[in-house]
Amino acid sequence: MAQRTHACGELTEQHQGQKVVLKGWVQRRRDLGGLIFVDVRDRTGIVQVVFGDQAPEALTIADKIRSEYVVEIEGEVILRDESQVNPNIKTGKIEVVASNIIIINEAKTPPFAIEDKVEINEEARLKYRYLDLRRPVMYNTFKLRSDITRSIRNFLQNESFLEVETPILTKSTPEGARDYLVPSRVHEGEFYALPQSPQLFKQLLMVSGFEKYFQIARCFRDEDLRADRQPEFTQVDIETSFMSMDEIIEMNERLLQTVMKEVMDIEIQLPLQRMPYKEAMDRYGSDKPDVRFGLELIQLSEIVKDSSFKVFAQAVENGGEVKAINVKGNADNYTRKDIDALTEFVSIYGAKGLAWIKVTEEGFTGPIAKFFEGEIVEEITSATNAESGDLLLFVADKSPVVAASLGALRMKLGKELGLIDESQFAFLWVTDWPLLEYDEEAGRYTAAHHPFTRPFDEDIEKMDTDPAAVRAQAYDIVLNGYELGGGSLRIFERDLQEKMFKLLGFTKEEAQEQFGFLLEAFEYGVPPHGGLAFGLDRFVMLLAGRTNLRDTIAFPKTATASCLLTDAPSEVSPAQLKELHLKINN
Amino acid sequence: MAQRTHACGELTEQHQGQKVVLKGWVQRRRDLGGLIFVDVRDRTGIVQVVFGDQAPEALTIADKIRSEYVVEIEGEVILRDESQVNPNIKTGKIEVVASNIIIINEAKTPPFAIEDKVEINEEARLKYRYLDLRRPVMYNTFKLRSDITRSIRNFLQNESFLEVETPILTKSTPEGARDYLVPSRVHEGEFYALPQSPQLFKQLLMVSGFEKYFQIARCFRDEDLRADRQPEFTQVDIETSFMSMDEIIEMNERLLQTVMKEVMDIEIQLPLQRMPYKEAMDRYGSDKPDVRFGLELIQLSEIVKDSSFKVFAQAVENGGEVKAINVKGNADNYTRKDIDALTEFVSIYGAKGLAWIKVTEEGFTGPIAKFFEGEIVEEITSATNAESGDLLLFVADKSPVVAASLGALRMKLGKELGLIDESQFAFLWVTDWPLLEYDEEAGRYTAAHHPFTRPFDEDIEKMDTDPAAVRAQAYDIVLNGYELGGGSLRIFERDLQEKMFKLLGFTKEEAQEQFGFLLEAFEYGVPPHGGLAFGLDRFVMLLAGRTNLRDTIAFPKTATASCLLTDAPSEVSPAQLKELHLKINN
Repeated sequence: MAQRTHACGELTEQHQGQKVVLKGWVQRRRDLGGLIFVDVRDRTGIVQVVFGDQAPEALTIADKIRSEYVVEIEGEVILRDESQVNPNIKTGKIEVVASNIIIINEAKTPPFAIEDKVEINEEARLKYRYLDLRRPVMYNTFKLRSDITRSIRNFLQNESFLEVETPILTKSTPEGARDYLVPSRVHEGEFYALPQSPQLFKQLLMVSGFEKYFQIARCFRDEDLRADRQPEFTQVDIETSFMSMDEIIEMNERLLQTVMKEVMDIEIQLPLQRMPYKEAMDRYGSDKPDVRFGLELIQLSEIVKDSSFKVFAQAVENGGEVKAINVKGNADNYTRKDIDALTEFVSIYGAKGLAWIKVTEEGFTGPIAKFFEGEIVEEITSATNAESGDLLLFVADKSPVVAASLGALRMKLGKELGLIDESQFAFLWVTDWPLLEYDEEAGRYTAAHHPFTRPFDEDIEKMDTDPAAVRAQAYDIVLNGYELGGGSLRIFERDLQEKMFKLLGFTKEEAQEQFGFLLEAFEYGVPPHGGLAFGLDRFVMLLAGRTNLRDTIAFPKTATASCLLTDAPSEVSPAQLKELHLKINN
Repeated sequence: MAQRTHACGELTEQHQGQKVVLKGWVQRRRDLGGLIFVDVRDRTGIVQVVFGDQAPEALTIADKIRSEYVVEIEGEVILRDESQVNPNIKTGKIEVVASNIIIINEAKTPPFAIEDKVEINEEARLKYRYLDLRRPVMYNTFKLRSDITRSIRNFLQNESFLEVETPILTKSTPEGARDYLVPSRVHEGEFYALPQSPQLFKQLLMVSGFEKYFQIARCFRDEDLRADRQPEFTQVDIETSFMSMDEIIEMNERLLQTVMKEVMDIEIQLPLQRMPYKEAMDRYGSDKPDVRFGLELIQLSEIVKDSSFKVFAQAVENGGEVKAINVKGNADNYTRKDIDALTEFVSIYGAKGLAWIKVTEEGFTGPIAKFFEGEIVEEITSATNAESGDLLLFVADKSPVVAASLGALRMKLGKELGLIDESQFAFLWVTDWPLLEYDEEAGRYTAAHHPFTRPFDEDIEKMDTDPAAVRAQAYDIVLNGYELGGGSLRIFERDLQEKMFKLLGFTKEEAQEQFGFLLEAFEYGVPPHGGLAFGLDRFVMLLAGRTNLRDTIAFPKTATASCLLTDAPSEVSPAQLKELHLKINN
């Protein structure tokens, strides 16, 4: 075989007259008046090759080739006739006149065409993943993924971060039920766990004085499979010492800006928008708001608490609230039936009803309009900026239900009404998180992020008196309504860490048993430290404009389809079991 | 706390007069005539800070600090008196006069000093890994590791390779006894396996038309722990399509050359030396020879086969051979006792004896000298290039024993006699491997590399007639006597792959069951492909000039010491077991 001289997709009119050797796959073959036209594809693109009488042997062989055959072609680049130019592909102005062809390998007819624009059910795509990945849209997604990691690594290494690999076989941590466990052959009867994140290791590297660590790390969660979740996933993991929260945020902003510029050629303005958690919940009913459009939640509790509409008044009286969104100019576009469907939708989120008012030149209309008069109408109109033609949608309930239901409704309507500029990439920091959440069921506090998150210094004393009011030095990074990741400053004093464990309900002995190594390490001179982690798979998905997380993973897991090596794990053989020394009486 | 302005190790006389804020660890404190001198360390180096009457409050605080306290220091850079200059460190011409100090965190006295040149037993180092990693020599090893991976990635991505992540949770493959197995919670009673390499996935990516893949991949082997082996290890994994063996070798040579230049500032001349497997075994008794020194094995079978020394004559008669190494000019340096020790040493490798001759002006001396006379003496002298003062060491046995014992003896003597230039990096390709090895015990052939290795085209027909003579298109890369890695062209035709499986003793059904997905994939247009993999841990070890593989892994596994999170995996809890649904009757 000859050495390849060019890639298919790179040939243009600049190569006119050149002899080339191409290698690739047959995209399609057409016979036309004694000539055979073959589109040859490699990962860079497609080029048209012509076989004719000038090379009768090649013509004979070309007659035998079928789609997806692997071929080597020698030929000469010529310009196409003006009338034959294909403006849709980069190589559309030229074609290659073949002088020779070798069939390197044959192919059966594939179960689906290797093209971007065909509908293929996902099961077939996953079963024949090696063919699905041949489609240019898939190759380009993985090229993007590779480019993104390259850009991330270069930025961080230029900022003198070290990439350090932490173990995959680790000790099981307390929330262990969802860890994957790995029996050890060497340590009989004992198990490793696969890490849910490198959190503890990266903190230990800060104890080690590494100061700037990162890793693009594989993490694991033994959870049910869904389209938006994989049991193994990849996380960009960063930790630094001696930096303040603002310094860490600023550094990560420059990282995101660099990636967007280098990979997507998109300019992101810094600083990125920041929003306290409370404000995000108030205005968007979400801790990861999509800020590419308005349709915000409007607080009406004070205005309607004394209204004659009992549903509203009672909700406020019972400690809940009343909020609305104003669907501008859409009063006429939503029939009662449409609104019934929306009511059904918000019920998923626990809302017992969806009140509505249509605003007309004559004032409010609709079943609840009669309950509002005079000043209240003016106040609602003013608060919601209501104008004739608007549709107001109300939920009255406990705060979490109002947020969840109106937040979800806002997203649904935003998409339906085309309010979202899909070409925009809206990054947002959500800050000022609570340190703790109260678990009603367990009757105790749990960590809102994780047990190593640092409270604001001025809030530390409230840990004893009013734990729910303690804010964390934590920050989430949100992109287009998706939580990309988050981070925090960490506790670096043994006594504060012990206080935190106590608040979370650990006895001294339990804390010692599970985190003794960390508490001991904290006695040997630990620097202030903090960091961030964000999901690479999801980041790739959003930048590639995909909606299925599996499209960003070369060999994903699926619950149903048998996907090559990764799915439906094998039954273990008796020999393997013996090796494992599993002495388990179940 | 103030923002850090400088790293400790970067301050030089160019910073004279500048106000600086430093953050780091107290290396040591000395009190001297009302002044306190503190060496402050961060990951970049050490700088001397002086506390005196100019800042009495700071002086009082400085009096309290101890080794490994974390401190923040404000001060001004001044030149040291000529007499105080320390030429051994980069910051030796300056010191920082402190105006302020904050103790950020205290520290207990560490179990060992944080210095490069202290002897610490490995158990303590691993128990307190976070302190061991504070030692500059360890930090620098991990910086080197990060720099090496950066250089590798940049080179490959510049050559338009894509980094693709392949699964960690995979299907178990036939040689599964040494796989780690991972019970699945979702798929009851079934197990994933952790991959020993991404071999099958990277071949599937070639089926997918990715053409150029790489990954710096974590791999796993459930084996006993040794200093030179870890159950999880990292491999630089490369695969390409449409490239010949020479093209792949040449590309990898440029990769190695680039890394050596960028990371070590060492020029490596290309092309690298290549040596057929047979020649390596003949001349060095090793398939991974250290070619930095001579002391080669000399074939003497033909010369001594008719000698009156029965040990030699019979060895040849029984199908074995006789070889020698000439320890130049060292006859007087080895007593009988020394040679007895060498005899003991070669016996480890199965040699039943070590014959020796000392060469004097008067001819051969020693217990076996009397068996050799006249022409044979001349021929031995000529073949071994023997001169007065030389020591000749002989082993007569089956070829594998001769190779193993004399090969090991060569390495031992090379080190003892200082024949090895330790500053040299000698890369070597070992080529022309046999495709198959005959397993006497099992009575069948096994793959010398793996079942996907491609034979030389001209040897394919010998697969039926003389399998042992078939050469593989495989190549190992050796550095300073260590096998770094290796690779091969792969089989890309279904029928040839099936023939290979058959040679290896698989029935058609077994092959189908275990590799059916690959055989099926091979029907859809597979390009010629091949690649290489080499061990990152070992590469780092050699470039860092270390001898213990564990020094290249941040949190290694050990058989004895309890190393933080990674060692002595935990006993699984009943709750975890229940989650795992392990229905195993053992």
